[in-house]
Amino acid sequence: MPERITLYTAKICPYAQRAEIALEEAKAEYTKYQIDLQNKPAWYAPKVNPASKVPALAYGGPPVPPDEPSPASVKLAESLILVEFVADLYPAARLLPADPVQRARARFFVDAVSTKLTPAWNSYLRTGTADARDAFVAAVDAIQGLLPERGFAIGDFSIADIAVAPFLARAYVALGNDIGAYEPGEGARVLDTLQQPRFARFQQYWADLQARPSFQATFDKEYVTEALKKRLGSLRAKQ
Amino acid sequence: MPERITLYTAKICPYAQRAEIALEEAKAEYTKYQIDLQNKPAWYAPKVNPASKVPALAYGGPPVPPDEPSPASVKLAESLILVEFVADLYPAARLLPADPVQRARARFFVDAVSTKLTPAWNSYLRTGTADARDAFVAAVDAIQGLLPERGFAIGDFSIADIAVAPFLARAYVALGNDIGAYEPGEGARVLDTLQQPRFARFQQYWADLQARPSFQATFDKEYVTEALKKRLGSLRAKQ
Repeated sequence: MPERITLYTAKICPYAQRAEIALEEAKAEYTKYQIDLQNKPAWYAPKVNPASKVPALAYGGPPVPPDEPSPASVKLAESLILVEFVADLYPAARLLPADPVQRARARFFVDAVSTKLTPAWNSYLRTGTADARDAFVAAVDAIQGLLPERGFAIGDFSIADIAVAPFLARAYVALGNDIGAYEPGEGARVLDTLQQPRFARFQQYWADLQARPSFQATFDKEYVTEALKKRLGSLRAKQ
Repeated sequence: MPERITLYTAKICPYAQRAEIALEEAKAEYTKYQIDLQNKPAWYAPKVNPASKVPALAYGGPPVPPDEPSPASVKLAESLILVEFVADLYPAARLLPADPVQRARARFFVDAVSTKLTPAWNSYLRTGTADARDAFVAAVDAIQGLLPERGFAIGDFSIADIAVAPFLARAYVALGNDIGAYEPGEGARVLDTLQQPRFARFQQYWADLQARPSFQATFDKEYVTEALKKRLGSLRAKQ
C-alpha cells in the first residue's frame, strides 16, 4: 500500500506534467501543489528540492499541509525518476511492461526524447534558425521512426509516451501561436510540414496521445498558451 | 530463463564497462566481442547499432558468430538502458532493490553521474582550465554528498555504482599519468586534492568500488592506460 504523496508541480512545466500523467495513470491518491516558478516560495528549495525545480515529490511522513513539508517524508526529484517511481509503486498501472526487452525499448524511446527531441525543440524555440528548425523536424522524424505500426511507443501505453507527450503539447501550442525566436509566420509553416503525408504515423501517434485521459486531465491548454505567450513572447524581440 | 546474449564492447570505453559490470554481477553467460573504436567493422552499424557506439547487446536469436549478427536477435543500446535490462533480466542479482524509494535513490545517483560528474570530467580533460578543474572537484564533492555513511551509493551495490565506477577509473588513470589538456603536473595535484580529509568518504567509496570483483574483472588498467595515452596524449599539445 503506497504511502502519502504530495506532488509539487507547475502547469506550464512539461517535466512536471510527466509526473502528473504517471500519477493519473496509476489512479494514485495524491495532493497536487502548484509552485509559481517565477516566484518560488522560500521553503521550497530547503525543504523539498535543493535544485529548486519542479516536479518534486514528498513520499510518506505525517499528514501536513503541502507548504509545510515534513522532514519525515522522503523527497524525490527529476521527472523521469518520478515516472519510474510511480511505475514501481503502482505495478498494476503497467506503465512499464513485465518483459525486459519491452522495458528496454520503452527506455530507449525515453532516451531519444531526452537526447534528440527536447534539445532540438528548445534550440529552435530559442534561436529560430533554419538549421535548428530542420533539426527539430528531423527529431520528430526520428521519434516517428521508433514507433511501431500502430499503438503507443512500444504498443501499450508506457513511460515512453509519458516522456514525450508534454513536450509535444507545448511545441504545438508555441508553433500554433507563433511563439518563438523564429521569423513571424514560421510556426504555422512548421505545423504544415508536420501535417505532410510523410508524418502520417507521427500524426496518428500525437492524436492518440491527446486522446489519453491522463493527458487531458493534466494539460490545461488555455493556461499553457497564456503562460507561454507571457514567458516566451519576447524571444523574437531579443534576436 | 534469459536467452543468448552477445555484448559488443571496447576495453577503453567507460560506457561499455558499465554493461560488462552488470553482466558480471548477474553471473550471466554471454559472449563478449571487442569493437575497435578507431576502425569499426563495416557490419557493426547496419547490423548491431545504427548509432555505431558501444556498448550494444544482441539478445536471443540463433547461435551465430558475433561478427555475423542475426537479424533474429533483438539489438539494444545505450549503457544505462543495458544496465537496467540486465537488472530486469536477472532480478536475483539485485542490481536494483525492490523498494521503490531505494530504486529512485539509485536512479537519482545515476542522474547525478550523468549530468554532473561525467560532463565536468570531460570538460576538464579536454579544456584543462582552472574553472573546469574546480567544477570537476565540485562534482566529486556532489557525488560524495549523495553517499550514505557507509557502503555503496544506496547501501547495497546497485546500478548507481555501476554507473560511476568506470568513469572514476578512467579519471584516475588520466590524472595519475598526467593525461589531459591541463598544465603538466596538474594531474598529480588534483589527485592530492581528492586525498584531502574532506574527501575521506569519497576515498572509501572509491576503494570499495575498486575492490568489487565485477569491477576488477572488467577493468584492464594497463590496457586503458596505454590506450588513453595514445588517444588523449595530444590533448595538451592542441591547446
